[in-house]
Amino acid sequence: MSLFNRLVATALPAVPKGLVRKVSSRYIAGDGIEDAVRVVAELNRSGAMATVDVLGEDIERKEEAIATADAYRAVLKEIEARKLDGNVSVKLTALGLKLDKDFCLETVEKLVRDAAARKSFVRIDMEDSSCTSDTIETYRKLRARGLDNVGIVLQAYLRRTAADVESLLDLSPNIRLCKGIYVEPRRVAFKDGAIVNRSYATLLERLLDGGAYVGIATHDEKLVFEAERLVRARKLDRARYEFQMLLGVERELRDIVMASGHRMRVYVPYGKSWYAYSVRRLKENPAIAGHVVRAMLARK
Amino acid sequence: MSLFNRLVATALPAVPKGLVRKVSSRYIAGDGIEDAVRVVAELNRSGAMATVDVLGEDIERKEEAIATADAYRAVLKEIEARKLDGNVSVKLTALGLKLDKDFCLETVEKLVRDAAARKSFVRIDMEDSSCTSDTIETYRKLRARGLDNVGIVLQAYLRRTAADVESLLDLSPNIRLCKGIYVEPRRVAFKDGAIVNRSYATLLERLLDGGAYVGIATHDEKLVFEAERLVRARKLDRARYEFQMLLGVERELRDIVMASGHRMRVYVPYGKSWYAYSVRRLKENPAIAGHVVRAMLARK
Repeated sequence: MSLFNRLVATALPAVPKGLVRKVSSRYIAGDGIEDAVRVVAELNRSGAMATVDVLGEDIERKEEAIATADAYRAVLKEIEARKLDGNVSVKLTALGLKLDKDFCLETVEKLVRDAAARKSFVRIDMEDSSCTSDTIETYRKLRARGLDNVGIVLQAYLRRTAADVESLLDLSPNIRLCKGIYVEPRRVAFKDGAIVNRSYATLLERLLDGGAYVGIATHDEKLVFEAERLVRARKLDRARYEFQMLLGVERELRDIVMASGHRMRVYVPYGKSWYAYSVRRLKENPAIAGHVVRAMLARK
Repeated sequence: MSLFNRLVATALPAVPKGLVRKVSSRYIAGDGIEDAVRVVAELNRSGAMATVDVLGEDIERKEEAIATADAYRAVLKEIEARKLDGNVSVKLTALGLKLDKDFCLETVEKLVRDAAARKSFVRIDMEDSSCTSDTIETYRKLRARGLDNVGIVLQAYLRRTAADVESLLDLSPNIRLCKGIYVEPRRVAFKDGAIVNRSYATLLERLLDGGAYVGIATHDEKLVFEAERLVRARKLDRARYEFQMLLGVERELRDIVMASGHRMRVYVPYGKSWYAYSVRRLKENPAIAGHVVRAMLARK
């Protein structure tokens, strides 16, 4: 983490929530499902696919998990009804992973089956390293139960990921590869940006050569370059992979990637639980943090 | 572009022309053909080959293009008469590319045929991205007309270059590979120096493996290292490639490369239109710009 990011992370609790919200509005679709649907339709018109995230992470009661799953079902229904090009991304902690693993598995299995009935797809997001093993295990169980419209995320900053890739390749998995953004101890995650990038490029090469479908999730143009290099050298069909970026981040690079003929999927979060998501985005992106600082100064 | 370079670019119009000229004198042979011939002979004695550039870019009348082509013919004649080891580098805009593409093709074709009669070679320089497609097309037409003593330049900073390499390899082309120095929009060119270097190394590897003859044009020792690594791993004969550097730039690295047993060709500009060339060199090279600043301070 750069010094600037560390300063921002330290200062963030002092930033008024209303201000975080204002700055966040560029990368969250809005509070309601209608906001998400509108943004997905706009993205589709621009040539991009979408994946919808109902905001909300750790929960305290199973009823909250069921409500979140129902919200996802509503999204899947709208996407099908409006013939949109989109799927959904879910966090297992929002579906009860920390409350009861079996309940969580049951809840996500039901959602993946509902998505299958609508010919859609469920991406299981990856969270901090306390969830990694359970999330991968949940994915394996879903695949063992015959479901294949489901994918997982691997994080290049985790030291374990190279081994996870090897253990998953037999499944011909659908993997979103990202750098990883949670704060992790050095024993768990690479701390050096250059190592994380080398890890990302190495894992991507292994995934592509191992027959995985890869969601190449990055806003780092150096990694976009590596990905394009790997794809070109293998003459890979564009249906074998997709690029993925977050709503509101690096719009110019998104357009450049699409103009090069690659498929692009944009991550569209919506909902009332926007704070944790926003703070994570603010911490990772000095440019966005700059907006916060300027906005705070402007208020004086 | 670094902050320093940006400052220099901003300050340059304020630098007196006489001063630009004085600083430029180290990387321009002089005003006349006798200056160019003298410098080529010196380079040959030091073990380097040369390529001569008659300064002058965009023109307004066809007569100027014909005068430039005649100047090149005079250079080719002198090189043959004095048994020098040198060829010529031409800019198509100086031969009328922006006035009339067919006229330009005819003019350069005549020059390439004259060079062939003297067993010499014509390198077609690459200019800004508004010229790229037309320049490549002109090269293809010359090759289709049976001329093979002609080569082209590809720029590693352009996003299109990987595709251009693939489309040209069938011709067993003679390619000078450089980073590229014109100011281009992000949609067109990589802006990050690390990406440009990765692009350069990747393109060089593909060109060498694809059977192209490559002029490895760089003053970046990181790229010299990558080039030597690629050449060594392939046990390439030294006749399959050459290094290329500009007159007056990184003389020490030039000597190091030659001492390692590689062939080296130095780009020797001469002529009265030295200003545009000099400003481009000043903008790209903070070390040279430093000389300007020191020279200005010394005048006070």
